[in-house]
Amino acid sequence: MTSAVSAAVFTWPVRVYWEDTDAGGVVYYANYLKFLERARTEWLRALGVEQGPLQDQHGVLLVITSVEANYRRPAHYGDLLQVTCSITERGKASIGFEQHVYRGRVGDELILQAKTKVACIDAKGFKPRPLPQIIIGSLTE
Amino acid sequence: MTSAVSAAVFTWPVRVYWEDTDAGGVVYYANYLKFLERARTEWLRALGVEQGPLQDQHGVLLVITSVEANYRRPAHYGDLLQVTCSITERGKASIGFEQHVYRGRVGDELILQAKTKVACIDAKGFKPRPLPQIIIGSLTE
Amino acid sequence: MTSAVSAAVFTWPVRVYWEDTDAGGVVYYANYLKFLERARTEWLRALGVEQGPLQDQHGVLLVITSVEANYRRPAHYGDLLQVTCSITERGKASIGFEQHVYRGRVGDELILQAKTKVACIDAKGFKPRPLPQIIIGSLTE
Amino acid sequence: MTSAVSAAVFTWPVRVYWEDTDAGGVVYYANYLKFLERARTEWLRALGVEQGPLQDQHGVLLVITSVEANYRRPAHYGDLLQVTCSITERGKASIGFEQHVYRGRVGDELILQAKTKVACIDAKGFKPRPLPQIIIGSLTE
Repeated sequence: MTSAVSAAVFTWPVRVYWEDTDAGGVVYYANYLKFLERARTEWLRALGVEQGPLQDQHGVLLVITSVEANYRRPAHYGDLLQVTCSITERGKASIGFEQHVYRGRVGDELILQAKTKVACIDAKGFKPRPLPQIIIGSLTE
Repeated sequence: MTSAVSAAVFTWPVRVYWEDTDAGGVVYYANYLKFLERARTEWLRALGVEQGPLQDQHGVLLVITSVEANYRRPAHYGDLLQVTCSITERGKASIGFEQHVYRGRVGDELILQAKTKVACIDAKGFKPRPLPQIIIGSLTE
Repeated sequence: MTSAVSAAVFTWPVRVYWEDTDAGGVVYYANYLKFLERARTEWLRALGVEQGPLQDQHGVLLVITSVEANYRRPAHYGDLLQVTCSITERGKASIGFEQHVYRGRVGDELILQAKTKVACIDAKGFKPRPLPQIIIGSLTE
Repeated sequence: MTSAVSAAVFTWPVRVYWEDTDAGGVVYYANYLKFLERARTEWLRALGVEQGPLQDQHGVLLVITSVEANYRRPAHYGDLLQVTCSITERGKASIGFEQHVYRGRVGDELILQAKTKVACIDAKGFKPRPLPQIIIGSLTE
């Protein structure tokens, strides 16, 4: 069900603000998942796909089905991070991503390494639905 | 438009977790608004009003229209706070609250003092709507 | 490095508030990690271990090194969830947990299944440190 | 204690992601305070002041002492907002800001209007401290 996908890596910058940190002095572990999602959202936007219309016009939502995250180094207040997003797997109704968070440039200090899996579901019934053509078309172009 | 309202003060306990703090070592300022809303939600629940059905059965949402918050002392990781909620004003389509956050017991160390105002709106059009009878009835009993 | 550990499952209730949800109408995926951490924190507290003193008196922090989360069903505004926490692995400087989130009672509707791994580190240098005796003692009693 | 301050308005763009919204379909009310703080942080950064060094080298923190926020219109998933920040008051140990959140360009649709007040405190004892020269110098240049 998985097809060949582009090796291109999309990158999105994220600045660390107070809101992202905790009293341990570092970015709170749950907040990295927000960063990962911003990168996935901007990757889709760069492909020409806005998630609002996906829901309104196509009646589907993209939802997370699994996350695997390895925390390598702490990020701190004020850090400028780079969050990557590349497709490792594409099913009929799902996409698998590999995502990294670096401090400095991509490839510099690895902060977080993650695999995230997204499924396409019916916005009402929450049942699996094939990825709409607008996404598939974007991926294979 | 404001009627006499009960002087009763509702109180809800909130434990401070890592998620609530920032790298300054204290509760992040935006997160107190979550605590205030938990207290308002539980106050409504104690009156027998669940907000889910409000939206589904009555087609209305309760939304915040204004917040005034004074930050008096910092709260820290592990603190057990008490969040109060009392009505100071009741309009046709809105409710005004006074809310406090204390460390320890109510009246001990004042952490935050706030006024919050909530409006009842149409869940679709976001236009003002009279508070449903289920809320008004609860308030005057 | 792994020793036999108690099969006991600790459970902590979590109510879903507006703050936890997103515009998809369900709990936002990153916020489950907050729920998981509340359960781990309360499990430690139930064992008599407060994390504030861990840092102040023992100079150590417990930090997450990995998370694997499988999202099974969406949780909604107003849901009352039960979050479990049981030890599956104990190293010299780390603890592995299995954690579940259920709607209703434990064993009812499975919302999320997760594995989380926590390491003990030096609060200053962020280097691994043996788990302090106060935790080890609590685990083996 | 208040001196004449520049009329210049600083603006910072904020994209609304899933993390910012709630099940009402709009931005969650507490999350606007994060947006306001990002704008204040970037305003300081534009003046050449990084808050990390403020704490490390000057031993001071900037903390919020009060917020007044009026919610005018809801913002939605995917919106691109502009968050403004201008000084209305400057004391020895505090700064008062007026801040607005607009959808589209500054002056287009007003989403939120806020006043925020920040105090300079000792990073250890949380007592008021004069604003460091690096900030005052930036403000009056």
